[in-house]
Amino acid sequence: MTSGRLAVVGLGPGAEAWRTPEASARLVHATDLVGYGPYLALVPARTPAPARHAFDNREEATRAQFALDLAAAGRDVVVVSSGDPGIFAMATAVVEELHRADDGRYRGVEVSIVPGVTAASAAAARVGAPLGHDFCCLSLSDVLKPWAVVEKRLEAVAGADLVVALYNPLSRHRPWQLGRAVEILRGHRSARTPVVLGRDLGRAGETVQITTLGDLDVADVDMRTVVIVGSSTTRAFEDELGHPWVYTPRAYPGALS
Amino acid sequence: MTSGRLAVVGLGPGAEAWRTPEASARLVHATDLVGYGPYLALVPARTPAPARHAFDNREEATRAQFALDLAAAGRDVVVVSSGDPGIFAMATAVVEELHRADDGRYRGVEVSIVPGVTAASAAAARVGAPLGHDFCCLSLSDVLKPWAVVEKRLEAVAGADLVVALYNPLSRHRPWQLGRAVEILRGHRSARTPVVLGRDLGRAGETVQITTLGDLDVADVDMRTVVIVGSSTTRAFEDELGHPWVYTPRAYPGALS
Repeated sequence: MTSGRLAVVGLGPGAEAWRTPEASARLVHATDLVGYGPYLALVPARTPAPARHAFDNREEATRAQFALDLAAAGRDVVVVSSGDPGIFAMATAVVEELHRADDGRYRGVEVSIVPGVTAASAAAARVGAPLGHDFCCLSLSDVLKPWAVVEKRLEAVAGADLVVALYNPLSRHRPWQLGRAVEILRGHRSARTPVVLGRDLGRAGETVQITTLGDLDVADVDMRTVVIVGSSTTRAFEDELGHPWVYTPRAYPGALS
Repeated sequence: MTSGRLAVVGLGPGAEAWRTPEASARLVHATDLVGYGPYLALVPARTPAPARHAFDNREEATRAQFALDLAAAGRDVVVVSSGDPGIFAMATAVVEELHRADDGRYRGVEVSIVPGVTAASAAAARVGAPLGHDFCCLSLSDVLKPWAVVEKRLEAVAGADLVVALYNPLSRHRPWQLGRAVEILRGHRSARTPVVLGRDLGRAGETVQITTLGDLDVADVDMRTVVIVGSSTTRAFEDELGHPWVYTPRAYPGALS
């Protein structure tokens, strides 16, 4: 039996205009699509239709094993992620299962990761360039890491004046984490620090909201929002037509030139 | 006179297969391309040919003004960046000039940022998922920020056990900075920590090298390399066909589940 192949594909943030040709090509050839239901729904229909295997958002390891098993059985499998599959998405789960399988059952399966535009890049683009200087991407989910680690990291990056992009800011199961994160950031930064909330980027109903660290209302954020908190140098302004912009300047105070 | 428009477009890391349809569409309609010469060379020729305005890599503010002036004169301008234009690239310079111009000369110019796949995502995809957990992107250039700020940030993120993607790791004018950065990271992390060096991703001559923090040789890095240094949990392994992988697990020690 010939082994198949498996690609973990990043759809980018919603819009087909942000999906790379490599991602689209893998989707066109796939016999099987594996993914979280709402992400599968973003893949356009085609003839012949690939099999669609929808999973719950929390079953990452099961999903990865299922996809690898299909590929080992000779199928052309695409694991569908949104954004970039390597950033808080399915690439890690697939490589973890590949590492865990030491009995040769995935031998010969050609596995590849197809990068995409991540949500923070898309949110940043909508408002200008808040990520134009040093920044970090942190997940606020404490499902797989201790909350103490999250707090330690927030303290460290806030103290080092990095722009912070928060993924998985909150969910039904994690209602208070974002509030605590904001509290930590407020301890280090001015209430006037620009904050960008990007939700459903590139999809129907996209919203992009610019606020400040002082005014940020946790009720405006849900699990589909990426939150970008500026550094001490990040600026917001309106251009002469009233269009709002946020950017982090290239120069940092104290530079020689 | 009608004002034109300006898009800061991320080509993605070299390969056309990683260029978004939105980026390609803006390139097709542009009357003028503005950019660093080697990036302009990545844009395919077409008829009618747009005017190509090549600049030196260091003239970012001049380049941004030039592009905005062209757009104000009614042209359809694309400022060409590699990777994601919002990450250590041209989006910031353009928004800065927009902010600086308070005399109305860019009023009516439609400015937009077209996101792309950033180099760290592409390098990560080539080897698996080293950015699968919390990470940061730092530029080692001290042209526009004091070196002391870079060191402070490296200490902070190394102490907080973030994966670190280093952009602009060194150049002819900045020969020692990477060595010092590696020294700081070695002070916090094991010599066995996986390190990924991605150079000319998606282009002819692409190289991706996997090494460790202990073995990392600064001579293997140049200004076209992105350097990803793992955290304490990042792992490297070879699959049964000898293909090398690097990933940062989803779970962090001490998690409840």
